[in-house]
Amino acid sequence: MPESDNLVEQVLAGNRRALARLISLVEDGTPEANEAISVLYSHTGSAYTIGVTGAPGTGKSCLVTELVKHLRTQDKRVAVVAVDPSSPFTGGALLGDRFRMRDLAGDPGVFIRSMATRGQLGGVARATFDVMRVLDAAGFDYVIVETVGAGQNEVEIARVADTVVLVDAPGMGDDIQAIKAGILEIADVIVVNKADRPGVKNTVRALKAMLELGHRKREISHHGQVMIQTDGFEKTLIDDMWQVPVLQTIATQGEGIEELAQAVLNHAEYLSSTGIQAERDRVRLQNELINRLRDRLVYDLLQRMPSQDLEKLVTAIAARELDPASAVQSLVSNSKHE
Amino acid sequence: MPESDNLVEQVLAGNRRALARLISLVEDGTPEANEAISVLYSHTGSAYTIGVTGAPGTGKSCLVTELVKHLRTQDKRVAVVAVDPSSPFTGGALLGDRFRMRDLAGDPGVFIRSMATRGQLGGVARATFDVMRVLDAAGFDYVIVETVGAGQNEVEIARVADTVVLVDAPGMGDDIQAIKAGILEIADVIVVNKADRPGVKNTVRALKAMLELGHRKREISHHGQVMIQTDGFEKTLIDDMWQVPVLQTIATQGEGIEELAQAVLNHAEYLSSTGIQAERDRVRLQNELINRLRDRLVYDLLQRMPSQDLEKLVTAIAARELDPASAVQSLVSNSKHE
Repeated sequence: MPESDNLVEQVLAGNRRALARLISLVEDGTPEANEAISVLYSHTGSAYTIGVTGAPGTGKSCLVTELVKHLRTQDKRVAVVAVDPSSPFTGGALLGDRFRMRDLAGDPGVFIRSMATRGQLGGVARATFDVMRVLDAAGFDYVIVETVGAGQNEVEIARVADTVVLVDAPGMGDDIQAIKAGILEIADVIVVNKADRPGVKNTVRALKAMLELGHRKREISHHGQVMIQTDGFEKTLIDDMWQVPVLQTIATQGEGIEELAQAVLNHAEYLSSTGIQAERDRVRLQNELINRLRDRLVYDLLQRMPSQDLEKLVTAIAARELDPASAVQSLVSNSKHE
Repeated sequence: MPESDNLVEQVLAGNRRALARLISLVEDGTPEANEAISVLYSHTGSAYTIGVTGAPGTGKSCLVTELVKHLRTQDKRVAVVAVDPSSPFTGGALLGDRFRMRDLAGDPGVFIRSMATRGQLGGVARATFDVMRVLDAAGFDYVIVETVGAGQNEVEIARVADTVVLVDAPGMGDDIQAIKAGILEIADVIVVNKADRPGVKNTVRALKAMLELGHRKREISHHGQVMIQTDGFEKTLIDDMWQVPVLQTIATQGEGIEELAQAVLNHAEYLSSTGIQAERDRVRLQNELINRLRDRLVYDLLQRMPSQDLEKLVTAIAARELDPASAVQSLVSNSKHE
């Protein structure tokens, strides 16, 4: 029996050490991990995912800790994935936050994992999705992904969550508002934490104003209708009528946490009753299928071809003797006539 | 003669209306535009690209305007591409900035273009690269791309510039520093604008401290050696020994602009003398080739296959009857046995 089968069985049986082990393999992108994920896939689809995102200093990790505690009072099993920003600059700040999460460490219904960053842009997002899938298969009711709300991967990671919670706090500076615009667009619930601080009314007002300015649109493709373009997929934008609530919390005192949990539940129900949840799942899986197919096809083609050939092409392109589009054409034609 | 040939000739002859027209076609991603870009490709590779990025309120556009004026005193032809953030939230603020750029509108050696955002994530970055290529072929000595330093596409766009200039200003708030980390990593020159404002020393100090904390590494692949993984390319990180200068400017008074232009020149010379420039060009073109190939192969495969087949697969995956990796395997096998 291959080791991955064994691991899969142990993970499905609730073995935490096996789970931690498998997640490490997933982070490393090993073939066993890919095999295990394929086998585990049929057990996925029941976890509800919550993305919690916010700048350092908003008390985001403390809020996550309190949210987990609350969900535990309802006997829900909860996994938390903390995604390090790919930048080494902010790495230090998060250490303290992660330390606070250790409150939960003794609880068998809680699993906390911090994603290592291997410096590979894009790789973190991919690994995070796979880890979320493993945790889903492992039977957690909620998978919470915590990210800093800035950077390339951040929005991408937050985007896959069923409900995206954006955490802000008073006194974070006006200028930061503009920066947050990108993440505000995908927020489903907004939390102003540290609501006992001065300036909370201004922060709430500013966030509400920005929400009104923005058009909330979700990318959902027509059911079953896929229009293909060379550079990707044409998607139809349909209006998402969800009204984003702006809540106030004082996470250090546990205040407002119940309301936050309720807002997440309301959103989950909204997604489910409107059919958006099912449609999003479908669109995501379709995109994943296409992306995997893309990688596989190019991999197969390059495997079949001598590596000097690729090098020669790149050299010709760099010398401006050949343009990239024509190079692609010749690669595709050659591979057909083999 | 197809219309694109005509446009290409006119663009190469320096016709500004033809250039504007072609850029619109490029933004729309028309087949004529793709054809024109292929033809123009052999004329590219001589423009030097500068990415200028910074939060709203840093005086970035004013700085760009002054930099363009300075380069014009040296008889350099300069194109500016202003990239709207994909978010509608910040769209308003940039309008005023763009207005200021009209100082340069009468100058035949200057071409200014604001990229429209069509709401397509990723599409803006792709269109921007193509527009930069067209401007390169049109004979501009410098192509300056101005972006707001946050958001998914922003870093991606800034990353393709030969020299990335990060603009900051005093009084932008401490919290914003953490957010900027992602962009700080790719900055080659840092400018503290509005240096007549109080707090300039603190801002300079904070930026220098963040620079020291961070490890500057550039993604450069081994020359001619490409290791292929299913999820992309393994790259070797080599140290870039460039010392990022932190300059002070007062753009509204033209102060520090010459020093900024000199810093960009120094960086250009550094890239060129170390061979990094040639290597980066090669790596970028190779990545572009692979990405185009990826899109093309998946497009070809999906074209050959009845659309219901894809739908059925996605339905099976959504029902957790089939996992994405196995679905890819079956798609690839079927296409081979056709």
